[in-house]
Amino acid sequence: MVKIPMGVLGATGMVGQNYIALLKNHPWFEVRYVAASPRSAGKKYKDAVAGRWQLADNYAPPVGELAVEDANDVSRAAAANKRGECAFVFSALEMGKDETRALEEAYAAAGIPVISNASAHRWTADVPVLIAEINHHHADIIPRQQKNHGWDRGFIAVKPNCSIQSYMIPIHALIRAGYPVERIIVTTLQAVSGAGYPGVPSLDMIDNIVPYIGGEEEKSEKEPLKILGLVRDGVFENAALPKISAHCNRVPVTDGHTACVSLEFGREKPSLETVKKIWTEFRSLPQEMNFPSAPAEPLIIREENDRPQPRKDRDSGGAMALVIGRVRPCNVFDIRFTALSHNTVRGAAGGGILNAELLKHKGYL
Amino acid sequence: MVKIPMGVLGATGMVGQNYIALLKNHPWFEVRYVAASPRSAGKKYKDAVAGRWQLADNYAPPVGELAVEDANDVSRAAAANKRGECAFVFSALEMGKDETRALEEAYAAAGIPVISNASAHRWTADVPVLIAEINHHHADIIPRQQKNHGWDRGFIAVKPNCSIQSYMIPIHALIRAGYPVERIIVTTLQAVSGAGYPGVPSLDMIDNIVPYIGGEEEKSEKEPLKILGLVRDGVFENAALPKISAHCNRVPVTDGHTACVSLEFGREKPSLETVKKIWTEFRSLPQEMNFPSAPAEPLIIREENDRPQPRKDRDSGGAMALVIGRVRPCNVFDIRFTALSHNTVRGAAGGGILNAELLKHKGYL
Amino acid sequence: MVKIPMGVLGATGMVGQNYIALLKNHPWFEVRYVAASPRSAGKKYKDAVAGRWQLADNYAPPVGELAVEDANDVSRAAAANKRGECAFVFSALEMGKDETRALEEAYAAAGIPVISNASAHRWTADVPVLIAEINHHHADIIPRQQKNHGWDRGFIAVKPNCSIQSYMIPIHALIRAGYPVERIIVTTLQAVSGAGYPGVPSLDMIDNIVPYIGGEEEKSEKEPLKILGLVRDGVFENAALPKISAHCNRVPVTDGHTACVSLEFGREKPSLETVKKIWTEFRSLPQEMNFPSAPAEPLIIREENDRPQPRKDRDSGGAMALVIGRVRPCNVFDIRFTALSHNTVRGAAGGGILNAELLKHKGYL
Amino acid sequence: MVKIPMGVLGATGMVGQNYIALLKNHPWFEVRYVAASPRSAGKKYKDAVAGRWQLADNYAPPVGELAVEDANDVSRAAAANKRGECAFVFSALEMGKDETRALEEAYAAAGIPVISNASAHRWTADVPVLIAEINHHHADIIPRQQKNHGWDRGFIAVKPNCSIQSYMIPIHALIRAGYPVERIIVTTLQAVSGAGYPGVPSLDMIDNIVPYIGGEEEKSEKEPLKILGLVRDGVFENAALPKISAHCNRVPVTDGHTACVSLEFGREKPSLETVKKIWTEFRSLPQEMNFPSAPAEPLIIREENDRPQPRKDRDSGGAMALVIGRVRPCNVFDIRFTALSHNTVRGAAGGGILNAELLKHKGYL
Repeated sequence: MVKIPMGVLGATGMVGQNYIALLKNHPWFEVRYVAASPRSAGKKYKDAVAGRWQLADNYAPPVGELAVEDANDVSRAAAANKRGECAFVFSALEMGKDETRALEEAYAAAGIPVISNASAHRWTADVPVLIAEINHHHADIIPRQQKNHGWDRGFIAVKPNCSIQSYMIPIHALIRAGYPVERIIVTTLQAVSGAGYPGVPSLDMIDNIVPYIGGEEEKSEKEPLKILGLVRDGVFENAALPKISAHCNRVPVTDGHTACVSLEFGREKPSLETVKKIWTEFRSLPQEMNFPSAPAEPLIIREENDRPQPRKDRDSGGAMALVIGRVRPCNVFDIRFTALSHNTVRGAAGGGILNAELLKHKGYL
Repeated sequence: MVKIPMGVLGATGMVGQNYIALLKNHPWFEVRYVAASPRSAGKKYKDAVAGRWQLADNYAPPVGELAVEDANDVSRAAAANKRGECAFVFSALEMGKDETRALEEAYAAAGIPVISNASAHRWTADVPVLIAEINHHHADIIPRQQKNHGWDRGFIAVKPNCSIQSYMIPIHALIRAGYPVERIIVTTLQAVSGAGYPGVPSLDMIDNIVPYIGGEEEKSEKEPLKILGLVRDGVFENAALPKISAHCNRVPVTDGHTACVSLEFGREKPSLETVKKIWTEFRSLPQEMNFPSAPAEPLIIREENDRPQPRKDRDSGGAMALVIGRVRPCNVFDIRFTALSHNTVRGAAGGGILNAELLKHKGYL
Repeated sequence: MVKIPMGVLGATGMVGQNYIALLKNHPWFEVRYVAASPRSAGKKYKDAVAGRWQLADNYAPPVGELAVEDANDVSRAAAANKRGECAFVFSALEMGKDETRALEEAYAAAGIPVISNASAHRWTADVPVLIAEINHHHADIIPRQQKNHGWDRGFIAVKPNCSIQSYMIPIHALIRAGYPVERIIVTTLQAVSGAGYPGVPSLDMIDNIVPYIGGEEEKSEKEPLKILGLVRDGVFENAALPKISAHCNRVPVTDGHTACVSLEFGREKPSLETVKKIWTEFRSLPQEMNFPSAPAEPLIIREENDRPQPRKDRDSGGAMALVIGRVRPCNVFDIRFTALSHNTVRGAAGGGILNAELLKHKGYL
Repeated sequence: MVKIPMGVLGATGMVGQNYIALLKNHPWFEVRYVAASPRSAGKKYKDAVAGRWQLADNYAPPVGELAVEDANDVSRAAAANKRGECAFVFSALEMGKDETRALEEAYAAAGIPVISNASAHRWTADVPVLIAEINHHHADIIPRQQKNHGWDRGFIAVKPNCSIQSYMIPIHALIRAGYPVERIIVTTLQAVSGAGYPGVPSLDMIDNIVPYIGGEEEKSEKEPLKILGLVRDGVFENAALPKISAHCNRVPVTDGHTACVSLEFGREKPSLETVKKIWTEFRSLPQEMNFPSAPAEPLIIREENDRPQPRKDRDSGGAMALVIGRVRPCNVFDIRFTALSHNTVRGAAGGGILNAELLKHKGYL
């Protein structure tokens, strides 16, 4: 199979670096276009990230030789698209919300599909917020989106905030199995890589935690309702439930968001054994279609009482699986558990790549 | 005022060290008797803790010269008591539950009041579990306890588990103000000093958190019901509410337990402003009587959105105050907030000393 | 004694905050003037540092009400000086070297003595680099400096880089006792507070160390030669020895720089016992004159084999003492040891205050 | 190629776990025998390590099903050896020195070669201390060792202390290239995994470093002399040089020992460029023979001024390469640099496996 040449916007930042590293040996996609801020533009990628590369894993050597383009200059990407070197882009742009929104639209208008990690378009009416295992069918709003804008091949699809990804798939699995979830109180212990680099100052993370992450709780409470919602007549209809209350904390962990979840079902209340069975057996389109980045087991249950732990469990399933532990009755709601996902892989670049695989599978790329 | 000479059992351990350090300049009490395991017995205190002393603050030099006694040998303490050198003891024993229970009873039987941090007697029917600001009146079960056992001057009074102390006083303040709390879901981020020394291995606390602390959640859910309960006819009657669900996590922090709390009131629901006013104005017997270890303001509210933080706030009010932040509506229950207390001071030795001050005030010491 | 009213430039930064906190109860000096960047100018100090205050210890309430001035506007300070509210300033400016140099000179020219933590003037020919216990006599170059510039009451005195302070006093003590030191190889493990706030990113300090601090090794190798030098005919003459080779590392510690030192004496080689005696008995002018910030014992030797440790030892002697451990023969040079000092107190604000006390004592303030 | 079945002694400990994980897909060796303390004996391996497994990487499933043997019972291993299931063993025993020495000899006497990480036999006259890239020829003392003891096929070969491995290969490379090194002053910043599990308490590693590791400095100063020595008439003759002075510190890093090295050459002093060329081009027997665990480039030079860093560089070359940075002139000796190696892979289990590959190559296994 000939690989699809594509690009990464914001390629020098933290999430951008993860895209570059994760795509190193991707069987379908090949990085041929990298763009970043004007400051990096014109440099070779390897020079632009020298001294800023944060990952143990390195990038494929050919990427290092690519000239970094100015992400603001859509015409460069459009030309690359015409040359067959940039069929679509991952957007890991780190700029203001309004600028991001406009720029992503400009790429789409230029015929370049944009698969984005940015939050700018999450509440745009015709933009799907995708977690491939949950709402893959939301992708089918894309033709409507293209029609709305008069776009030909371009479109925008986004992924949700990283922190909810540690528990949304388990919630969805329960709902899908016939056990609607009505209320969730969740406390997250989030890794510093979620704030990029330089991000969180070390003085805040030595002998300390910070009980606040700007905007995170609001996103955690609202985005799930769009993801779990319906598409009716080409319009998203948000789910009314579950009600979610989130407490988001920053802790001294490099990668891996942990969530302590208490949840209440509606009338149908599964036993703990049923819950575990639902999770262990959960498979969705990415598994059925065997997408390259899909974890074989998306939900891994650990029975030891002190797991999941970020350092030991975050890389499970190629860092794309969720690890769930401490499944037990809740003294106030019905059940409680602790869940973990790798925030820069499953929660960011890896999730974006899985979305691209889904969109390719569905014929939109 | 002549200081009351007293002793510390388990004086070489982590909590014992805190007792010794905190009592350095205490206006009422003076450490004249130290006991520990047979391994330390016979050594000078300063030699017994050499290489094991964990605190930045040091102990009063005279204590360093005391000979460490064997904590198992109650006759030594009884003799010291007769000599007027050990009017009562703080128990920071680190042994099995049954052994601790029996040994604390032996001290009480020998005429020596025991004010304990150990969990052994928390569910003994006639032993009060005291948080001085909440249930100081529970101390008045002591004559009944003495009568039950035929003890003369000895008795046992204990303090609850450290993790609940970050939020029980605020809960009590609301209840006292006429706003009963019915349900609480709380997630704690607990410091490693709570596990003593050597305690938690560093391999578990570098780039990691551990979502489990043995026995902690059970204690957190049950002990508040005794503390908030009534004494009727010389017997404790546990409160029926609030229902509590606790998720307890260990995080890489030396001192300071953080709690993320969502709570639901009964019919009476105060406004956020009322909640804050209740907390800011809260005073109880320790403040009214101006006990030496009582913080002037037991509940301190921080308005910055990223507080409380362990390193910056744990020493507030001489490490005896609770610092509360992020008071806001809960999307599922009524309100939510984050609270912090110093686990080895307010939550352990400092809380024990405050209990002793209460018991002295009430004439039991 | 009436306190001398004075000011802090750069009062909202990390070192500035330390000045404000340390001067809270100072018996000689009283903060009456605070200046910072134009961004903070006009705000009350308490508002300017809200959300940026890094210390557990707080500032004196009157300081919180002071209006922050623009540090670039020397005329404001000059007016305060005339009003008797700003007899001298501590400079904790965080700007470019050239700008700092010019601005500090402008304050001096306006009649305001400047006691600086900045590195800008360390190599200015007539500016003394003071460690009060070592080269207090270097202060006597001040009249010459004033004459050189035609300054009346103003002058500039600075302190050296924080990292050398962990071992320069012990080196000086040996030299003063008749044992010249010829060669030093030192590796430092430096705290993150040395880089200010936000400073070192947490991603660099979780499960990691960084073997580099820009400019630190050069300063560590050169500044001691000025400090240990002579003043001849009103001009500094740098010492030729010791030759120093420094390896400077950043480690995940909030406060407290540790130095592992191997040193070689000249012909006169003291025994280990002599070395320890020299250090234990070392006293200098600050101790003899009992300056308020002078530690009674400037050099504290710990005999345990695993000390000094930053968290346990940095606050020794009011965070102004050096703690030395592991004094032992060196397998290559003569002796080796590990030394620790609190970098934001002894190594920054506390050291500056001690210098001010020295300059007051000598009549320059 | 049929894999050689072999065993691991101390298989449940930290180093033992690394052996099991690293041998998962080894092309030459296959774990068929696991032994540990009597406490684990009789359990399946997966049950014996449940709740104690420290690594992100897991073991091969067949190993999980092996029954753990009692390491003290050599007859079990001898029987397995006869059945063709235990051709040799890796020893990661964690017991007293004398017991280890005796037990390793008993295995050798039973015909089972022992490749050990333990320090017990490092100073035994006829036991080679191997770093495969440096002194592979020392392996040829094995026939003499076997003759000394009247052993048939069994023998003992060991590896040195982990901390020296970060800089011994570069030192050897320089010596081999004709630039003898006379003096070394080195300070190490060592990872906590070097102390096993539970090992270093977290209270010592939060906001702290510990400037001491028992026995480490002595080993660091002496073991290199045996490794760099000659074999003359079947007897090791230790090298006289280099003189080494080591300062060993424990820092809050999971894996990866960092060393800050200053060194002095003898008369022949290479330029910095020559030094780097020697290191970059260095290859030895493991590379020439392409041993499975040999890194293609054993010495990797990073030119960025802030590398090597443990988290980013420890996995270089399959965690078997050394990463060297900051190569620069020394202000006291000739050159200085910072070097890093993965202490539980290159410095422990991986180094042991490479030694086994060497011994297989030489026909001793």
